[in-house]
Amino acid sequence: MERRKFLKGAALGAAATGLAAPAIAGSHAKTMTIVSTWPRDFPGLGVSAQRLAARITELSEGAIQTEYFAAGERVGALDVFDEVASGNSQAYIGADYYWTGKHPALAYFTAVPFGMSFAEINAWILYGGGMDLWDKVQDQFGLKGLPAGNTGTQAGGWFNKEIESVDDFKGLKMRIPGLGGQVLGKLGASSISVPGGQIYENLVSGTIDATEWVGPYNDYFMKFYEAAKYYYTGGMHEPGSQLSLTTNKSWWSSLSETEQSIITAAALEENSNSYFEAMALNGQYLNRLVNEHGVEVRSFNEDVWDGMAEAAEEVFEETASYDALAAEVNGAVQDKMREIGLGISLFEGQFVNQRNRILGLN
Amino acid sequence: MERRKFLKGAALGAAATGLAAPAIAGSHAKTMTIVSTWPRDFPGLGVSAQRLAARITELSEGAIQTEYFAAGERVGALDVFDEVASGNSQAYIGADYYWTGKHPALAYFTAVPFGMSFAEINAWILYGGGMDLWDKVQDQFGLKGLPAGNTGTQAGGWFNKEIESVDDFKGLKMRIPGLGGQVLGKLGASSISVPGGQIYENLVSGTIDATEWVGPYNDYFMKFYEAAKYYYTGGMHEPGSQLSLTTNKSWWSSLSETEQSIITAAALEENSNSYFEAMALNGQYLNRLVNEHGVEVRSFNEDVWDGMAEAAEEVFEETASYDALAAEVNGAVQDKMREIGLGISLFEGQFVNQRNRILGLN
Repeated sequence: MERRKFLKGAALGAAATGLAAPAIAGSHAKTMTIVSTWPRDFPGLGVSAQRLAARITELSEGAIQTEYFAAGERVGALDVFDEVASGNSQAYIGADYYWTGKHPALAYFTAVPFGMSFAEINAWILYGGGMDLWDKVQDQFGLKGLPAGNTGTQAGGWFNKEIESVDDFKGLKMRIPGLGGQVLGKLGASSISVPGGQIYENLVSGTIDATEWVGPYNDYFMKFYEAAKYYYTGGMHEPGSQLSLTTNKSWWSSLSETEQSIITAAALEENSNSYFEAMALNGQYLNRLVNEHGVEVRSFNEDVWDGMAEAAEEVFEETASYDALAAEVNGAVQDKMREIGLGISLFEGQFVNQRNRILGLN
Repeated sequence: MERRKFLKGAALGAAATGLAAPAIAGSHAKTMTIVSTWPRDFPGLGVSAQRLAARITELSEGAIQTEYFAAGERVGALDVFDEVASGNSQAYIGADYYWTGKHPALAYFTAVPFGMSFAEINAWILYGGGMDLWDKVQDQFGLKGLPAGNTGTQAGGWFNKEIESVDDFKGLKMRIPGLGGQVLGKLGASSISVPGGQIYENLVSGTIDATEWVGPYNDYFMKFYEAAKYYYTGGMHEPGSQLSLTTNKSWWSSLSETEQSIITAAALEENSNSYFEAMALNGQYLNRLVNEHGVEVRSFNEDVWDGMAEAAEEVFEETASYDALAAEVNGAVQDKMREIGLGISLFEGQFVNQRNRILGLN
């Protein structure tokens, strides 16, 4: 990011949240500094995080004054975890699976391969015991998280060749972080971590052969279609990427019950709004990718799915073997995913599949 | 409902919301009387509506004092529309398709046969132009609605015989309201409207042969399994029943922007929480229905689905012919459902279907 853009962005951010504060909150107002993993004004992710920060100030009538810093404006994108754990800032907005190096179980609260959809992960976290486990994992770092956004099931990725069997992953250099990258690693790919802002140049230069990002609405603005023609529909790696508003736990505990409720309500409102927005726009932006940019849409075949599933089992075994807590979280996710997933599949799933068959939507 | 229960319920309601109000709100507090279509403490629907009423008082720190009246406590369940339109109460919580007699397009903002899932209807209402149309329909009655709950895809229903072809609907007396009932009517069933509290006795006495209600979690408490053995998975009639918090529009317009935001955030928080709760519990309660009560789970076959879809087309044509606004809403729903639905199907849908195939979840 250029320095000029950074300065302009930071100034705008302070102004935007400052405006919402009525004079009445006055000297009692609490400051809530929020650092984020997303670039300022980034379509989808960045806009959603900024909307949430402004909403907390608004709903509290200025009693909680949020100051929002996008990636790089106060600390680097991946440094927000330490920034909040240390108490330098009060909260981050990001994806907990960025910090599996701190504890591998953090991945389960964002997304794991062959894991839960938006509906499933939220049912688990909010009404199926997931929040207690998330608290247990984050507690080790003095953090307390809340669901605060979701991108839905991510696209399988952008490739410059078709993937017709798992052998086509061999030797492929692909930007795919986290456990999803480990799954493709077992199939012979090299998974490479590149921050969002540098993927495009790496793909164009040939440093990487393929990349995943989010879905049609978010991906459209990344211009990957200039270097990779084949766009794969829903992949196995991030079935419903859950974003979090994670606070410093001592700060969180110092808040009144009402203040906690206001922050929770704002986070949960944005949690589903970000998902609904992506769902409203993915169909439209997929059409634009195809019609304006000649993108060819493909789906992985069943053999590829089966091969990825076998590799994922190994990855789960390795992750669960890290410590007792990782094993507990992995076990809970595997059980609850089946129980919740079956309930959704038999009702919503069967309806949607029959309706789509009749309407030809697939 | 007995008079004693009514009095006790009403008193508890006032106390529950009164408790959340700090003294500071004092004389500036606004009263928001909410009337609901659900019985007090009704698992799922009733509990969700009460939670929303209490949350508005809490988030506003008592500046908006909600008074909640369950069905029959102030006015009858289906009288809440007129109660709020007249300005006697400030808001109702209910399902707008109960009032298709006022305008048939109201059905589209709750659920229509072969219509939208939870994700789809919210994407449409919040980010796909649906809210403007809802405003246009409700404006005629001086009302302003917000999404405030969703039960997910409703079960196909409880039957005392298996449904193996559309001929099995002939002569069937089934409790199924709204456009779904009209669809089965075209296939020879008699659709009968019975309020929730009277379905059980009608089913046991044989006045009706079959009924639908919500899904496993909600249905478990209705004890329909005592009179109907076959429970059908996701049906065509209510793919993602959207509940609303609908306010009197003059009152809504008199609120400050912050007050409107607080009510909107609380409604949207409950909108997804009610859905996540049902999704977390449906799988569990389906197991209990099968294991504790010997319920046999069935799915409609493709021939039955195709027959219902043909009948639904006729129902949409009739509904759209009511007036220009009904035609506009029907057209928008049919278009947006395909655009949004295809986006979801290619990403989340394809992933979930492949994962479920691999895990044997279906």
